[in-house]
Amino acid sequence: MPEQIFSYHQLFQFTSSVFQKIGCTDEHADIATKALLSADVRGIDSHGVARLSGYIRLWEAQRVNATPSIKVIHETPSTAVVDGDRGLGLVVAPYAMQIAIAKAKQAGTGWVSVQNSNHFGIAAHHAMMALEHDMIGIAMTNASPLVAPTFSIDKMLGTNPICVAAPAGSEPAFVADLATTTAANGKLEILQRKSLPTPSGWVQDKEGKPSNDPHELKKGGALLPLGGDREHGSHKGYALGAVVDIFSALLSGANYAPWVPPFPAYVPMPSQQPGKGIGHFLGAMRIDAFRPAAEFKKSMDHWIQGFRLAKTVEGEEKVLIPGDPEREMEAERMKKGIPLLEAVVNDLRQTGERFAVSL
Amino acid sequence: MPEQIFSYHQLFQFTSSVFQKIGCTDEHADIATKALLSADVRGIDSHGVARLSGYIRLWEAQRVNATPSIKVIHETPSTAVVDGDRGLGLVVAPYAMQIAIAKAKQAGTGWVSVQNSNHFGIAAHHAMMALEHDMIGIAMTNASPLVAPTFSIDKMLGTNPICVAAPAGSEPAFVADLATTTAANGKLEILQRKSLPTPSGWVQDKEGKPSNDPHELKKGGALLPLGGDREHGSHKGYALGAVVDIFSALLSGANYAPWVPPFPAYVPMPSQQPGKGIGHFLGAMRIDAFRPAAEFKKSMDHWIQGFRLAKTVEGEEKVLIPGDPEREMEAERMKKGIPLLEAVVNDLRQTGERFAVSL
Repeated sequence: MPEQIFSYHQLFQFTSSVFQKIGCTDEHADIATKALLSADVRGIDSHGVARLSGYIRLWEAQRVNATPSIKVIHETPSTAVVDGDRGLGLVVAPYAMQIAIAKAKQAGTGWVSVQNSNHFGIAAHHAMMALEHDMIGIAMTNASPLVAPTFSIDKMLGTNPICVAAPAGSEPAFVADLATTTAANGKLEILQRKSLPTPSGWVQDKEGKPSNDPHELKKGGALLPLGGDREHGSHKGYALGAVVDIFSALLSGANYAPWVPPFPAYVPMPSQQPGKGIGHFLGAMRIDAFRPAAEFKKSMDHWIQGFRLAKTVEGEEKVLIPGDPEREMEAERMKKGIPLLEAVVNDLRQTGERFAVSL
Repeated sequence: MPEQIFSYHQLFQFTSSVFQKIGCTDEHADIATKALLSADVRGIDSHGVARLSGYIRLWEAQRVNATPSIKVIHETPSTAVVDGDRGLGLVVAPYAMQIAIAKAKQAGTGWVSVQNSNHFGIAAHHAMMALEHDMIGIAMTNASPLVAPTFSIDKMLGTNPICVAAPAGSEPAFVADLATTTAANGKLEILQRKSLPTPSGWVQDKEGKPSNDPHELKKGGALLPLGGDREHGSHKGYALGAVVDIFSALLSGANYAPWVPPFPAYVPMPSQQPGKGIGHFLGAMRIDAFRPAAEFKKSMDHWIQGFRLAKTVEGEEKVLIPGDPEREMEAERMKKGIPLLEAVVNDLRQTGERFAVSL
């Protein structure tokens, strides 16, 4: 499939300009662009600029407010609830994470549950904001229902990702960012484009039977929780996705379970809206609220080096540390540029034309 | 396999007496017994009284201190590090959880990382302590290395469980308690007794090749992270197990990764000891630090009822809420008694004889 290469700078200018054109302040446009492009540079192509036109359509459908008045509506020394005022999650989540970090400076840890937001891009971007403060960062979000819990035909949860980022010393930071499903939707899209079957345990059909069809979601089927089926622990993936929903939405007053608003603007809103918008959960733990940061980082280096020395199975070169592949991709793409599929480029150019912004 | 039924009261008296005989105070003996038996009543037979003789052997090997001076060695408004003084994890973890709860009362949340402890039984017991305070409870622990990360032959992590317990209103509490492996060791033991093969994705052999032999661990093989293999998301289970290790041991100064002391007293200590004992992580979040507890519980009821109404796949009666099976088991066993395998009864009686305590 044909690709074109763009520099980070090119995509940043373009994307930020588009966000400004819909009414975002310069500051918000830059914050949103940084969050969105963090996916492209880290190789999570499904969550980056490929989604820009989707965000714009949500704004057109008046589901995204380009000029939100984001505010704290409740707080204690270590907690806050943020009302995102229907803003871009790409802006609301970094705002909430800053509050978590500020609380952690004072109280040791900070935990912010967010209501009335929209999709926030990749969780890692927000969690990693904690690293430069010598804190562990945590980010989760709920999302519209694509996942059938164990034994369910109905789709009750989103892919509800969890990210935990922890600083190290001479080694790079540990960054675990995972959807609580066997495979994220982006992986299905790759198989769809290549007309390849999905491995077992990724999807089920509309009757809840195992399937290997990557198009199953469009036919009434569902993604499966991490584990795939009961015998392989899908009740655990389901439980983790449920925890993300509880922390992100039940604690904040956002929509939850099958009632989370869909990302595609053309999909009708769910039948009920028990809360406001979608929900996130952001956390920051100051390392030295537990132990001197230098000691912790030395232990992290030792931990990481231990795993790097582990003996590998035949055919594999190394045991990866969570975050390794994305960091290597980031180094490469910041240097050589970011390849975009022609379909994505065309979609971006169409979006740009409407606002007289050229790519 | 022949079984005998015992009442909770019978097992409590016996177990507490044994703990007293090794030198525990009456209070510690009762706390430890309550934690240990919570596994038996909830149906997690592998983690209950079946392990009593194992704990006693650790005491004999001077790896468990029956009279620990457990203390906070560092703290902030929302955090603490506890030194368990080599006490029973069954005593140290509830102590640490009480501190987390007290911190949450003051600061909104409380987070306690524990060093110098031993195995703490089931995570759910500790996390659920938060429920009566209208708090969400979190409990994790690291454990000795039985799990090979994705692409690794070497066993680098324990089964490292995570529990999250959240209160509901008219519905019972949500309690997700999961090892970060495809299957816990206890499940393997059941298959061993029945001479049945393991499903795919549970274990690998000593060369890292897929295996269906439930005895594989004794032959140099390993348990696999939740997901089983890379294609089915084992890198996610591995990342979650790693997070548990970081929170439990890197933040507290306990041993981590392959250097966590083994539970069986006859297994030699690891070659290095980068920290002290094993590590736990306990957390409590006060619901009304985010939102009025009554509102949250009403939403939890709505959430739970939504899942109970989900359409099920053919052959299944209902979609389970995390905690359902264990709660149902507890109701049954508190009423009808707790069945123990004859081998377990014999082991308990042998332990009892040494201390002149009869079962």
